[in-house]
Amino acid sequence: MHCLWVFVLLENIRVVLVNTSHPGNIGGAARAMKNMGLSQLVLVDPQDFPSAEAVARASGAADILDSARVVGTLEEALVGCRLVLGTSARDRHIPWPMLEPRECGVAACEQAQQGAQVALVFGREYAGLTNEELQRCHFHVHIPSDPAFSSLNLAAAVQVLAYEVRMAWLAAEELPLRPEVVVEQDDEPVTADELESFYAHLEQALIEIKFLDPVRPRRLMSRLRRLYGRSSVSKLEMNILRGILTETIKAARGQHQKQEKVDV
Amino acid sequence: MHCLWVFVLLENIRVVLVNTSHPGNIGGAARAMKNMGLSQLVLVDPQDFPSAEAVARASGAADILDSARVVGTLEEALVGCRLVLGTSARDRHIPWPMLEPRECGVAACEQAQQGAQVALVFGREYAGLTNEELQRCHFHVHIPSDPAFSSLNLAAAVQVLAYEVRMAWLAAEELPLRPEVVVEQDDEPVTADELESFYAHLEQALIEIKFLDPVRPRRLMSRLRRLYGRSSVSKLEMNILRGILTETIKAARGQHQKQEKVDV
Repeated sequence: MHCLWVFVLLENIRVVLVNTSHPGNIGGAARAMKNMGLSQLVLVDPQDFPSAEAVARASGAADILDSARVVGTLEEALVGCRLVLGTSARDRHIPWPMLEPRECGVAACEQAQQGAQVALVFGREYAGLTNEELQRCHFHVHIPSDPAFSSLNLAAAVQVLAYEVRMAWLAAEELPLRPEVVVEQDDEPVTADELESFYAHLEQALIEIKFLDPVRPRRLMSRLRRLYGRSSVSKLEMNILRGILTETIKAARGQHQKQEKVDV
Repeated sequence: MHCLWVFVLLENIRVVLVNTSHPGNIGGAARAMKNMGLSQLVLVDPQDFPSAEAVARASGAADILDSARVVGTLEEALVGCRLVLGTSARDRHIPWPMLEPRECGVAACEQAQQGAQVALVFGREYAGLTNEELQRCHFHVHIPSDPAFSSLNLAAAVQVLAYEVRMAWLAAEELPLRPEVVVEQDDEPVTADELESFYAHLEQALIEIKFLDPVRPRRLMSRLRRLYGRSSVSKLEMNILRGILTETIKAARGQHQKQEKVDV
């Protein structure tokens, strides 16, 4: 029973590699994952996969490659995820909530322990994640490398975060179970895809009330993504926010009438 | 002065690779070292070095390869070392003092800080270190991999220990683990009274768009207070939210016209 629970825990943590160029790095990442007990690999638009070079570098972790999901967009890779952690270099224009790898391991295990799906997202070998991709992440993770030579090999970066996940998992396994927090169903946080639908709705509403000029959007949506992304919005809260947006759009269109309200 | 001392500290920690088969792993190890601020590489009887493949995998860390010392025996590689840490799988015949990677990082930094030379020793890709070689080590280090698939790639193992050395070094230096985020004045959180003004404005807007019925408010505002209250809303974000409310109210009243926007 205990073992089953443990198994489920690490299964909840997926590694997402975005637009990887070199299949050797996919194989190296798979090996690093399996060494650390992770099994769920998602490849977003890989440039060369499946590949004999990936299998060679996986060196015994070919099963991870065989069961890898290949998808077209990051959005698809994140469906169902309640916590999305994206690796990032320094110096982004918009400061984002940052975790160091150790905190990342702890946060991933805590969420997975509660039954949530977690994604660790790694960008391209040379260019990393785009700003748009980074804004889909709730937190950014920076591996504290030497600023003079800061870019880790992709498989090496996967190794470091997978290692920290395993360290947190081993530590959690030795701790007594914490008092159970009764989570109301209402309090369950939304998933990454639900958050994306909200952002699309929000953007539409902001255009309708003429607060957002689609021709000159500036950084408005990314500022709002940062705010809501770090706030662990619950499903109930999301219902309220979506209801507000629906009514806002109706008001902007002069379509006011008596509406069914969200039950709070 | 401080910087010089820091420099000397990490210079005191050498990475020793014993009888490596694949030059790609030597290159990968060099890159991992340089990423983590280590520079001293010693190769004991490498099977293929120098090598173009090593340079390719080093990817910018060729200087580590150029300055690597090549020696014939582990004994030569360890001359002058006060602390020798050897990577090992579990279950050796002779029980030996074991460290986990985190303890290894701390021990290496402590010794190096006192001016001692430290060696991190890594064995062959398939066979690891021999018993004789392991007995030259003061401590064995085991990376806590999944027992079902425990053997890390050589460069990945170097990455994990080099990472733990860097983490211990950053902690000892009291350097920030996270990249310094220059907090713009805009990012300063709002005060409680600013939040209260926002709630009043929000409530007014919700009434105007007919989402909130003042006669029967239910728990709507308290739900929204809980959401925004835990989100550490910054002054810039508050300006955006207030701007949205202002435009929403205008839209509800049919007072749309070209407005000055909040600068984001």
